[in-house]
Amino acid sequence: MKFTVGQIAQVVGGTVEGDANAAVSSLAKIEEAGAGALAFLANAKYESFLYTTGATAVMVSPGLVLRQPVSAALIRVDDPYLAFTKLLEFYQQATRTGRRGVEQPAFMGESSTIGTGHYRGAFSYIGEGCVLGDDVLIFPHAYIGDRVTIGQGSVIHAGAKIYADTVIGRYCVVKAGAVVGTDGFGFAPQPDGSYKAIPQIGNVVLEDFVSIGANATIDCATLGSTVVRQGSKIDNLVQLAHNVEIGRHTVVAAQTGIAGSAKVGDYCVLAGQVGMAGHISLANKTTVTAQSGVGKTVKQEGTILQGSTAFDFKQNQRAQVTFRRLPELEQRVAQLEKAQSTPEKL
Amino acid sequence: MKFTVGQIAQVVGGTVEGDANAAVSSLAKIEEAGAGALAFLANAKYESFLYTTGATAVMVSPGLVLRQPVSAALIRVDDPYLAFTKLLEFYQQATRTGRRGVEQPAFMGESSTIGTGHYRGAFSYIGEGCVLGDDVLIFPHAYIGDRVTIGQGSVIHAGAKIYADTVIGRYCVVKAGAVVGTDGFGFAPQPDGSYKAIPQIGNVVLEDFVSIGANATIDCATLGSTVVRQGSKIDNLVQLAHNVEIGRHTVVAAQTGIAGSAKVGDYCVLAGQVGMAGHISLANKTTVTAQSGVGKTVKQEGTILQGSTAFDFKQNQRAQVTFRRLPELEQRVAQLEKAQSTPEKL
Amino acid sequence: MKFTVGQIAQVVGGTVEGDANAAVSSLAKIEEAGAGALAFLANAKYESFLYTTGATAVMVSPGLVLRQPVSAALIRVDDPYLAFTKLLEFYQQATRTGRRGVEQPAFMGESSTIGTGHYRGAFSYIGEGCVLGDDVLIFPHAYIGDRVTIGQGSVIHAGAKIYADTVIGRYCVVKAGAVVGTDGFGFAPQPDGSYKAIPQIGNVVLEDFVSIGANATIDCATLGSTVVRQGSKIDNLVQLAHNVEIGRHTVVAAQTGIAGSAKVGDYCVLAGQVGMAGHISLANKTTVTAQSGVGKTVKQEGTILQGSTAFDFKQNQRAQVTFRRLPELEQRVAQLEKAQSTPEKL
Repeated sequence: MKFTVGQIAQVVGGTVEGDANAAVSSLAKIEEAGAGALAFLANAKYESFLYTTGATAVMVSPGLVLRQPVSAALIRVDDPYLAFTKLLEFYQQATRTGRRGVEQPAFMGESSTIGTGHYRGAFSYIGEGCVLGDDVLIFPHAYIGDRVTIGQGSVIHAGAKIYADTVIGRYCVVKAGAVVGTDGFGFAPQPDGSYKAIPQIGNVVLEDFVSIGANATIDCATLGSTVVRQGSKIDNLVQLAHNVEIGRHTVVAAQTGIAGSAKVGDYCVLAGQVGMAGHISLANKTTVTAQSGVGKTVKQEGTILQGSTAFDFKQNQRAQVTFRRLPELEQRVAQLEKAQSTPEKL
Repeated sequence: MKFTVGQIAQVVGGTVEGDANAAVSSLAKIEEAGAGALAFLANAKYESFLYTTGATAVMVSPGLVLRQPVSAALIRVDDPYLAFTKLLEFYQQATRTGRRGVEQPAFMGESSTIGTGHYRGAFSYIGEGCVLGDDVLIFPHAYIGDRVTIGQGSVIHAGAKIYADTVIGRYCVVKAGAVVGTDGFGFAPQPDGSYKAIPQIGNVVLEDFVSIGANATIDCATLGSTVVRQGSKIDNLVQLAHNVEIGRHTVVAAQTGIAGSAKVGDYCVLAGQVGMAGHISLANKTTVTAQSGVGKTVKQEGTILQGSTAFDFKQNQRAQVTFRRLPELEQRVAQLEKAQSTPEKL
Repeated sequence: MKFTVGQIAQVVGGTVEGDANAAVSSLAKIEEAGAGALAFLANAKYESFLYTTGATAVMVSPGLVLRQPVSAALIRVDDPYLAFTKLLEFYQQATRTGRRGVEQPAFMGESSTIGTGHYRGAFSYIGEGCVLGDDVLIFPHAYIGDRVTIGQGSVIHAGAKIYADTVIGRYCVVKAGAVVGTDGFGFAPQPDGSYKAIPQIGNVVLEDFVSIGANATIDCATLGSTVVRQGSKIDNLVQLAHNVEIGRHTVVAAQTGIAGSAKVGDYCVLAGQVGMAGHISLANKTTVTAQSGVGKTVKQEGTILQGSTAFDFKQNQRAQVTFRRLPELEQRVAQLEKAQSTPEKL
């Protein structure tokens, strides 16, 4: 794919300064761009790169005043970042193979159905009683258990496993290797100290526009449903235990683990490697910083937590500053004690 | 599946108060149950739900005295929780498809054998020289390397990978995507700062009744065996490095990682996201709380550890309380110092 | 495989003391070895095991002076550990089935090519436009997307997923279930609080001699490349986000997570369960201890970090020692305050 700078300016509704006939064939960051690449400058902080970049063209805002000569062609456009994002989307659609139809061999139970415009990759497996919508893409090695429903436009990537009775909404993405709906970690201790598995008969429900990361694991509910509500994004290697509920438009970053029956509100942000105890809940718009461990219910909206065990973010920041000086603090106390015990020498 | 309240009462050995002909088709928690559902009440704490539940029937203890009218039919039974658990097991057995036989295409090396009552899902792979027992279930996309033995009644879920020479006992469960027996992370540093892989020629042994979680990883031993002993339960995304030994009836929760050659005793509990250093050991009945990092051997049975680095749980709890007040503590010390340096003004 | 002690001595260039005709069929640690096993003694610390071992033969250094009778045959060799390692390599090569050729069914796009001496396991999938070198091994259930290149001698293990446009060098190992090149976790917040996926059009580059652990996840770059440079070793369940760069000969242990656009230098060691924030960098030869969380750029080579949030290792060690005594320290301060407020009673 090659375009001229002029063609791109037309697409994004901008005006060209410089060589409108120069050819552009890739997208890149302004600090990394080389010949043939199109970059953008949205943040004044990076303006110096404009004068050194190897890019063939750079999209800039209409009001930018040049302080040095620029070798790249400029495309003046109202919102350079937005324009760049649209080009990214266009590029992604153009380069991703739009596989459709069925590659052989693929397995689908006779009682299952799938809508129009679908893709079933080679070695994909679909059990019995499944109902899959239009434009559903099932990549190679994906496993879909019995009675699973998947809404329109959802994508199940390579080697993802969707266990029986899972309900997936529209336009969801389950990334490679994710495991959705496997039995939860429920074991009843026996009098002799051994454990017996508690039957797990619930399921997992992913509402519309949910994304599940690569190799993440989401256990089915013991009873009822483990739920991820509309628009929430779950990153790679996250663990959601049985009966967890994630609210709407919440973000859970990589390697975070949430224990059984915990509930996270809407518009929350859990950073990476966070742990959350079972049977507690987080109010809407709660933020938890990386590696924190949340042990108690949070009722106040907009709370920011840090630490393991977690408490108020600012308080934790201050405590950590003092923590680094702890040995000195202890010495100061010892000094005071020494002075106190020998007052006569003062 | 539909049953009348009367039929269920007969199965669990209870007596009915209310409509014995009402139809029940699902199991649910008392606080979430709707029409057609059967719930139970075992803990007096939840009694208020009995008067508001939408359940069609609730199992309660013989001695429960009603303080308000109840719309649900009641089934009086000696141990409502136990009765409910039995119904769960029955339900699970009835709804899970009892797949048996071989779905095509499936791959099995000519020198491998498998007992009666087995299931080999489509796209499952079994190498050469394997000996698999009766009632072994191999789900789609499972990979079984060469010379693996799997005992009676064990289940290898979708996409689990069992590498060569692994020994799996009876009635084990390896959940979806788990990797058992891959080469450990052993590299010898070379004089030039690069690393060379150390051959890993050991294997993994899972004794009877062991459960391995989804996407967990268990490395083979460098020499000898990485071992999980009888009845132990390993949760999702856990990492057990080469030559780790887990004792009997020990529980390891999600995302915990145990480094090479570490040994965990019998009846231990490691909570989620715990880390354990290599070449150390934990006495029987050790408990480690979530996100803790264990760096030293524990010799005393029944020890409870917390913190990263971990030490005695109660001591850690107290230290954490003071930690939150650290900035104030530092100010108090500064105040004392100030007072001391100006004694004449007192 | 059975060898006599004399045959092994010949192979490693050693001399025998004891029964040169004794048969040896396995390799083991000296403290665990039984009849038929060959062990080694390199570290004087373990010498006591020499007098109690059940091994049939032990390789020892030429200068070792026996202090007690030994039942095992001895093989005197210059560097017993090195000799043992060579035998391990020999054993590993001999026992691992050297599968070559194509098992059916396997899938490969018509426009893809693979060199001589390759293995394509049953149910492996290779998309379109791939270029795979000589001696490349693709195990069962591996997924290779479009336009992937893999250099000579690299091994893609069972169920590993390599997404489109990934570039893999020579003699790399991608272990079972690893996911390389899936879309990163990039979402742009919208005015209504929901999130929209940012197109991810970059790729992943693994240079020569790189090892990626089981069920690890490596996201593609938003633009440009996520890179792991020559000789670096990434352990199981590690997460490398979009645009991360790992230098040469760096080791990243299990369950560590590195956020977007972070850069790790050459010859670094990141221990298990470490977290690293996005957009920061670590100088060459940085060491980060287990469970630490790195939040700031490190410019000084050879820095050792500990803690969450991480700072200088030694300073952190001292602070942790005081941390355990925090409640007592607080009491001592209270005592001082009490004394100060009642000076007249002194």
